[in-house]
Amino acid sequence: MKQMEEKILRDGQVLPGDILKVGSFLNQNIDTVLLGQIGEEIARLFAGDHVTKVLTIEASGIAIAAAAGMAIGAPVLFAKKHLTSNVDGDVYSTVVHSFTHGADYNVVVSRDYLGSEDRVLLVDDFLANGHALRGLIDLCDRAGAYVVGGAIAIEKCFTGAGDKLRAEGMRIESLAAIEAMSEDGIVFRA
Amino acid sequence: MKQMEEKILRDGQVLPGDILKVGSFLNQNIDTVLLGQIGEEIARLFAGDHVTKVLTIEASGIAIAAAAGMAIGAPVLFAKKHLTSNVDGDVYSTVVHSFTHGADYNVVVSRDYLGSEDRVLLVDDFLANGHALRGLIDLCDRAGAYVVGGAIAIEKCFTGAGDKLRAEGMRIESLAAIEAMSEDGIVFRA
Repeated sequence: MKQMEEKILRDGQVLPGDILKVGSFLNQNIDTVLLGQIGEEIARLFAGDHVTKVLTIEASGIAIAAAAGMAIGAPVLFAKKHLTSNVDGDVYSTVVHSFTHGADYNVVVSRDYLGSEDRVLLVDDFLANGHALRGLIDLCDRAGAYVVGGAIAIEKCFTGAGDKLRAEGMRIESLAAIEAMSEDGIVFRA
Repeated sequence: MKQMEEKILRDGQVLPGDILKVGSFLNQNIDTVLLGQIGEEIARLFAGDHVTKVLTIEASGIAIAAAAGMAIGAPVLFAKKHLTSNVDGDVYSTVVHSFTHGADYNVVVSRDYLGSEDRVLLVDDFLANGHALRGLIDLCDRAGAYVVGGAIAIEKCFTGAGDKLRAEGMRIESLAAIEAMSEDGIVFRA
């Protein structure tokens, strides 16, 4: 998606440790013109896939999922993160390791909101090591829901995690796919 | 807003302790048709107020703020909650007490994203005791930003917190304003 790549080149900041800072337009201060375009593009990519639910993980995926859900016309569900391990029986639960925070989280959704009749589109701001996405896939598996694929604002292709998911048969669409990045520049996948 | 009141009457659940559960359509599983209507209604209410930024607090305010920001055409900024008190100098910070979680949170936004040139619309899903909204007002005061008002999906008027803010001169618009509620029913402000 051209607008996303241009925005990353103009306003993204590459920091040491393979960090791409996009807080100025994507995941803290959100450019809502771009957000609307992101929603429309995700809806276009998954048109005809009969998505019944857009699933994301709090907090930085919510705005993107909301834009996608509005464009698709499907409800948005967000999985909650908890540090505590006392999870009650009314939820589907999985464990996701966060490298950013150096901790394991329980990621949960209510059983009331996800079921075997659902065709789920997973949405997140970043795909780096794939842990968050695999956690969401696991929640869908537990619910018996079908995953139509994942829509990611920015994929760090150089980790290999997205291609590994693709090799396993998962459809992953990234609006910006970064092959390489350094302080000298960013190379997008052709 | 008629659609919001109807949705609350149809799908909201009043639980003991003055809790209104709206997870099925507003703050966990989000009805994106309603969400689009919420965004348009907030944009209508604050048309002409030259809003330059929509500010909310993670996580359940983000989708509503995103819808409002897209309808208004202004960026959305979300303040982050931290349990830890080690807040660096690049942020504006305030403390908010959460009755839901029985803890004090540091609520922070980056200094890069909020400034004295901003005309800020505060957005949240609920106004109950007003603590979250007062925290956001405090962040704006620290940034020297002007607060044009607050847009709230559901106000629990019976707490008096919203009317206290109004008496102090703050413009508060609630899409559904609940005067009284019990398991027997819900009474909206006329």
